[in-house]
Amino acid sequence: MAEPLKVGLAGLGTVGTSVVHLLERGRAKLLARCGRPIEVVAVSARSRSKKRNIDLKKYRWFSDPVALARDPSIDVFVELMGGAGDPAKRAVQTALASGKAVVTANKALLARHGQKLAALAERKKVALNFEASVGGGIPIIKTLREGLNGDAFTRIYGILNGTCNYILSRMEQDRLAFDECLRDAQRLGYAEADPSFDVEGHDTAQKLSILASLAFGTKLDPNAIYVEGISSIALADLDAAADLGYRIKLLGVAVKTEGGIEQRVHPTMVPKESAIAQVMGVTNAVTIDAEGLNPITLVGPGAGGLATASAVVSDIADIACGVRAAPFGRPAARMTAIRKAPMQHHEGGYYIRLLARDRPGTAATIARRLAQQNISLESIVQRHGIAGQGSPPPSGRSGEPVPVIMITYATSEDAVRRALAAVRRDRVISGRPQVIRIEKN
Amino acid sequence: MAEPLKVGLAGLGTVGTSVVHLLERGRAKLLARCGRPIEVVAVSARSRSKKRNIDLKKYRWFSDPVALARDPSIDVFVELMGGAGDPAKRAVQTALASGKAVVTANKALLARHGQKLAALAERKKVALNFEASVGGGIPIIKTLREGLNGDAFTRIYGILNGTCNYILSRMEQDRLAFDECLRDAQRLGYAEADPSFDVEGHDTAQKLSILASLAFGTKLDPNAIYVEGISSIALADLDAAADLGYRIKLLGVAVKTEGGIEQRVHPTMVPKESAIAQVMGVTNAVTIDAEGLNPITLVGPGAGGLATASAVVSDIADIACGVRAAPFGRPAARMTAIRKAPMQHHEGGYYIRLLARDRPGTAATIARRLAQQNISLESIVQRHGIAGQGSPPPSGRSGEPVPVIMITYATSEDAVRRALAAVRRDRVISGRPQVIRIEKN
Repeated sequence: MAEPLKVGLAGLGTVGTSVVHLLERGRAKLLARCGRPIEVVAVSARSRSKKRNIDLKKYRWFSDPVALARDPSIDVFVELMGGAGDPAKRAVQTALASGKAVVTANKALLARHGQKLAALAERKKVALNFEASVGGGIPIIKTLREGLNGDAFTRIYGILNGTCNYILSRMEQDRLAFDECLRDAQRLGYAEADPSFDVEGHDTAQKLSILASLAFGTKLDPNAIYVEGISSIALADLDAAADLGYRIKLLGVAVKTEGGIEQRVHPTMVPKESAIAQVMGVTNAVTIDAEGLNPITLVGPGAGGLATASAVVSDIADIACGVRAAPFGRPAARMTAIRKAPMQHHEGGYYIRLLARDRPGTAATIARRLAQQNISLESIVQRHGIAGQGSPPPSGRSGEPVPVIMITYATSEDAVRRALAAVRRDRVISGRPQVIRIEKN
Repeated sequence: MAEPLKVGLAGLGTVGTSVVHLLERGRAKLLARCGRPIEVVAVSARSRSKKRNIDLKKYRWFSDPVALARDPSIDVFVELMGGAGDPAKRAVQTALASGKAVVTANKALLARHGQKLAALAERKKVALNFEASVGGGIPIIKTLREGLNGDAFTRIYGILNGTCNYILSRMEQDRLAFDECLRDAQRLGYAEADPSFDVEGHDTAQKLSILASLAFGTKLDPNAIYVEGISSIALADLDAAADLGYRIKLLGVAVKTEGGIEQRVHPTMVPKESAIAQVMGVTNAVTIDAEGLNPITLVGPGAGGLATASAVVSDIADIACGVRAAPFGRPAARMTAIRKAPMQHHEGGYYIRLLARDRPGTAATIARRLAQQNISLESIVQRHGIAGQGSPPPSGRSGEPVPVIMITYATSEDAVRRALAAVRRDRVISGRPQVIRIEKN
């Protein structure tokens, strides 16, 4: 039998312990697959005494993950500690520099230092695999890196954060407010005690920067991404979306435009009958558009110990089988600097929800401001009261503000921002307007 | 610059010419990807004079594909001729035996001779790639071969034939009969002049045998598959399915059971809200179930020159990048013989549509025959007339036969067959009963 592939594993949380179990349970199958057994020989974690359902005595213990990363007894270093900084960063660098393959689920580290790490892996001719960093159990990294490389990708977008999708799904299905759904998500372990990283879109942004790099061959730049979270989404928006034939999802979108590559994370109205709109709960989904091709959509579990662990194990198995691709699909030196398309130049349809003051002239003022920016409306809905565009203003009573919902034809972000700033200056609306971009499939 | 990867291409139909175009158009991108240019140097096809939108003068011409396959000027032989026999078979064998990598879209060849060809590729340490053979532009081969290999797969099923899905979608959406939709499919180029290979399920069966082998590590055996096509599906079935919360799709299903691996192709009722039910038209989709994981679904274009060509090019690019995996995901010698679970032992729910003779005792007879086989009914619908189970038979008039639709709880194929044979012997129904299996997600 061939020499076993010896694995050192740093980080023994849910994913780490699941990896140990999967490798043990799948031992015979993995051996059959690559003709070479895979063995965990050493582990590292913050605490040795913490209760875990694995027998630590079977593995050498390292209190320092960096020491494990350079230990000559291992062939592969599996990093499941997380975080863009040390010790994860130093451990991964050390492992690669020592000529060891690395498998990691650490999206933060990759989004920030992926470029340098890929170059180092290339120099040392070792694998740097990170299937688990995006989309949990969905094989999206491999698909972009190797699976479709004859294509000219034009757009990649998806639901990359299970927490947000769970919250939006619950809000819609159970008619609950954002805060209530967030609390439920926390209770069920879908959201952290500090949920802002998830709900404000930063987790999605890190993942998107990895996907964009793979799809377009560009250098990673998490700062090139426009980010907006879901905490401002109200039930009124979900209801209006449903009425208009849409659903609201937090999407990460990377798209090739004439002005460069546009990368953005924001709540998005997607057509109700699209594949992506069907994805409810903690499930993730990614759609890939390429020139002249119908879109390809991958749907599956976005998180969860087992799904993530299964992606880690497939990365380890690739190493055991001798499959090695460039980490970001092309030699690091050939990854191009990203030409960032500024968000103000984004073009598309917009959903706008305003609270209009219930007095003469309001509708006319709003209509004028939109017209000044050449924004045409596909539809306008005013729930209580009357005044559609052009219809007479309601009688003198200074009642409650009236919700007005508008869908624009394709226009630019810039135009929408200017028009709404003018409307606010005109003092014909109360509060901030709600703006949600529409993504067509 | 590194030596170019030299490609010899046999078969210049829609897919072949698209491959040539894609390789030219994607030249810079592919070079960036693998640091090595990819060049078509020689081609072969049945006729040299046929009009094609490529300039044949740029390539060496071989009238004999086998001569091309062994020509020292090429590194990779791309086989797009099709057919399980010669010249495709001999050409692929010759190429592999000459130490050349092979890329093929030939599902028939793989389903029949995949085992031997994989062993030969392995012996010669060359790649044998066939992403285009199943699911066109969907990267299902790579996903099963490399992407998820930590997992214990339990079931894989999908819509693998665009022609059938187009016909069933049109029947449902436009309320047309099977024959009409088939004629339209032929007119649009979605179906062959002799459509039986597609509509009788044989195309799906060949693809399923490839997927089953990849998923379960078993030897290919297209004869181990139970096959039933869609030509008997009537509008009445689609209507009944819709009423009951289902859609009818032609599925290929491979599932691990206690009795072995069950492989079957047949019209299937799938829950209307499942991912697979949303897939309409010529689109393909595959769902993968693994122990303890939520299912993963891949959706995309199942056919079309460009989608298929794009899969071929990604296979060629893998070779240029030096990515090589075992053709069926594990060494050929480790692929196990398939333990075939006989169709009679299949267990699941059934949809049964009968034309019951409109006379006293019919309902009671049918009910008794089902009960004798321990089949319980989840629902029964009788459209015209009265007699539900137990209600009094209609009055003596010997009118038209009455359609009766039943959904059973989980039972066995054997029980259903016996019960229906008995009912036919009892002469209480007219014509053959329609039976459609239900697949739960």
